[in-house]
Amino acid sequence: MVNNKYSKLLDNKIMATLFFEPSTRTRLSFESAMLRLGGKVIGFQTRDVSSVKKGESIADTVRTVENYSDIIVIRHPLEGVARMAAKFSSIPIINGGSGSAEHPTQALLDLFTIKEECGTIDGLNIGLCGDLKYGRTVHSLAYLFSNYNINLYFISPASLKMRFRITDWLRDKKMKFKETEKFKEILPILDILYMTRIQEERFLEPEEYEKVKDVYILTEKDLDNTKENFRLMHPLPRVGEISPDIDKSPKAVYFKQMKYGLYLRMALLALILKGNNFV
Amino acid sequence: MVNNKYSKLLDNKIMATLFFEPSTRTRLSFESAMLRLGGKVIGFQTRDVSSVKKGESIADTVRTVENYSDIIVIRHPLEGVARMAAKFSSIPIINGGSGSAEHPTQALLDLFTIKEECGTIDGLNIGLCGDLKYGRTVHSLAYLFSNYNINLYFISPASLKMRFRITDWLRDKKMKFKETEKFKEILPILDILYMTRIQEERFLEPEEYEKVKDVYILTEKDLDNTKENFRLMHPLPRVGEISPDIDKSPKAVYFKQMKYGLYLRMALLALILKGNNFV
Amino acid sequence: MVNNKYSKLLDNKIMATLFFEPSTRTRLSFESAMLRLGGKVIGFQTRDVSSVKKGESIADTVRTVENYSDIIVIRHPLEGVARMAAKFSSIPIINGGSGSAEHPTQALLDLFTIKEECGTIDGLNIGLCGDLKYGRTVHSLAYLFSNYNINLYFISPASLKMRFRITDWLRDKKMKFKETEKFKEILPILDILYMTRIQEERFLEPEEYEKVKDVYILTEKDLDNTKENFRLMHPLPRVGEISPDIDKSPKAVYFKQMKYGLYLRMALLALILKGNNFV
Repeated sequence: MVNNKYSKLLDNKIMATLFFEPSTRTRLSFESAMLRLGGKVIGFQTRDVSSVKKGESIADTVRTVENYSDIIVIRHPLEGVARMAAKFSSIPIINGGSGSAEHPTQALLDLFTIKEECGTIDGLNIGLCGDLKYGRTVHSLAYLFSNYNINLYFISPASLKMRFRITDWLRDKKMKFKETEKFKEILPILDILYMTRIQEERFLEPEEYEKVKDVYILTEKDLDNTKENFRLMHPLPRVGEISPDIDKSPKAVYFKQMKYGLYLRMALLALILKGNNFV
Repeated sequence: MVNNKYSKLLDNKIMATLFFEPSTRTRLSFESAMLRLGGKVIGFQTRDVSSVKKGESIADTVRTVENYSDIIVIRHPLEGVARMAAKFSSIPIINGGSGSAEHPTQALLDLFTIKEECGTIDGLNIGLCGDLKYGRTVHSLAYLFSNYNINLYFISPASLKMRFRITDWLRDKKMKFKETEKFKEILPILDILYMTRIQEERFLEPEEYEKVKDVYILTEKDLDNTKENFRLMHPLPRVGEISPDIDKSPKAVYFKQMKYGLYLRMALLALILKGNNFV
Repeated sequence: MVNNKYSKLLDNKIMATLFFEPSTRTRLSFESAMLRLGGKVIGFQTRDVSSVKKGESIADTVRTVENYSDIIVIRHPLEGVARMAAKFSSIPIINGGSGSAEHPTQALLDLFTIKEECGTIDGLNIGLCGDLKYGRTVHSLAYLFSNYNINLYFISPASLKMRFRITDWLRDKKMKFKETEKFKEILPILDILYMTRIQEERFLEPEEYEKVKDVYILTEKDLDNTKENFRLMHPLPRVGEISPDIDKSPKAVYFKQMKYGLYLRMALLALILKGNNFV
């Protein structure tokens, strides 16, 4: 990985990471991707930044930072901020996660993982399981899936069902999907199970979180009821929904997913900053 | 901007940014400037650093960090800290903003902006408007102006007048200045209006802030009463004192100011680390 | 220092600094060391990171970050975390300080300082003074000393004595050491006095800290009672235990210690990432 032929591709380019919400995975993988391509990084990582404290608008923050960088990755707890940032920016903006709404680069790396692991995307039985209401990765992923011919299963407690905005979109696209609360019945037919963490920080009432937090727990034994080529994915972090016993199984690909994420983000930065002819 | 002939000038040099107070603009522009010149950056961005928590003196912090870097940019809420740091340091120290007292590199970039936009500095009618008591940028700028032949107008509420330390200095220097609370009367004669944010975070009493926060608001209509070559500046961030309608006017130069700031800081770093003969 | 022949040695290598506890010295010196060798840096500096807030295990954090970097430096308030991280990681892990237990790279730089300053380590009379219970640097240093023939003096209040785990180890190793509360009596025979800060943040009761915080204070006058080649060391930060009057004495080497720390960490990174044949 260390000496790749693109290690000077983005020489002299600067990426700004404006993270108004904490992040380990997304920020570090974007920063690593930029550095692996020879680029440089500036940014901040909390809401405790001067501009926010002093009441500056996102528009002004973007119009400032675009002077100091060549591309901006923005994460913000409010939906729509990345879109608004793009409207005011003269340089490219990447959405690094917006509230509980969207996380498009995660969806791209998820799709890339499926392609790499299964060799195809069309024709698969794919289950999205867990917090389909607040989990931003499954929202963005569902939109991407609508470009393929997939049998989709939304597995969640009734209180955390996939948002209407997305199910309506899928119906418009004539996408096949089924909503259910039970995942063990479906497990044997799935090619991909995409587990997600119940997003404790999005709940207003602790009791509501307690009710659903342990609804879906996958153990090593459950893998016996899966297809030979079954693949278990997770955007991470996980809390208790996937037992660590499973990690060593070749069916568990969530750590490979992280590595694919690095490659995907390298490709994305290269494409955006160098166009299609960088290869 | 990306491929400049100085992009390797500071190769192998390290800048340390010691920001004991949050900052977006100043820190990111210094970091971008250093990276654009091929240099590297280390640092911290909050008071929540080990040395502060453990009670270390600024002198010891500087004598530590000077081992790890070639130049230090320091921001601190207390006045005089940058000066003290410089006393103990064997490497160059740049003041990145000291409390509500001084912000010298901002003043330099402001002066550079005026020169670029007006072609001259001498002979201009310049108004500094808003929070002249707590606004550190106007303090440093007033000192710089004293080297030029300028008609200066200090426009502020009575409670936020320019500090005596500075008006006394200007009188000693035989500098022409006028203090007033009304800015619309003066607007038609100004070549430059330098607006500032009322610094909410420096007020001890919220009511005191409320009284003055909306005293000066510039709208698009106000621009009709300005000279053809009038230029509106602001160190940013702004909160409500400049209506966003104005942004698209060629008279509004506050976003260009940001870009000039990057160039100014690049020049400053190059001069300090390479001397006058780097060109 | 700037143009060293190793300035491209770690070109394209990325170091991740995972600091779950604040740090100035250790983090900045590791980052400077990596940059001086041509490497790059990613990381975080507080517990306020996404993975921690979302309840992720250290194992999963490490298995994520190992995809984005070539070496990890980890600091954590809990003992044993670095060891656990190493167990789960496929890339090298360096312990950057674990709670009040260990700080191995500090011990290495301390040993290197002694070697450079005294020309030898064997045969010296060395005093470790202050907070021997909570001071992690003295723990790691005592382990290292057990490889040498040293007369060791542990000077501390009764409540802050060296931990049994370490004195037992030293006895097993047939190491000579003496425990005492009085340091002025011993001062004349010492070659090295290694002072430490009383670690306020590790005390549960403020009164307990107050009782011992000023027990050991070294003043300029005390140096008169030391050998000609006596050397005073301190891992820094200091609070009040070494008077600043002493700083200018050639016997005070704590700031040189910082510089040796940079070199030591450069050597460590080079050895780990390039092996013994990098010279």
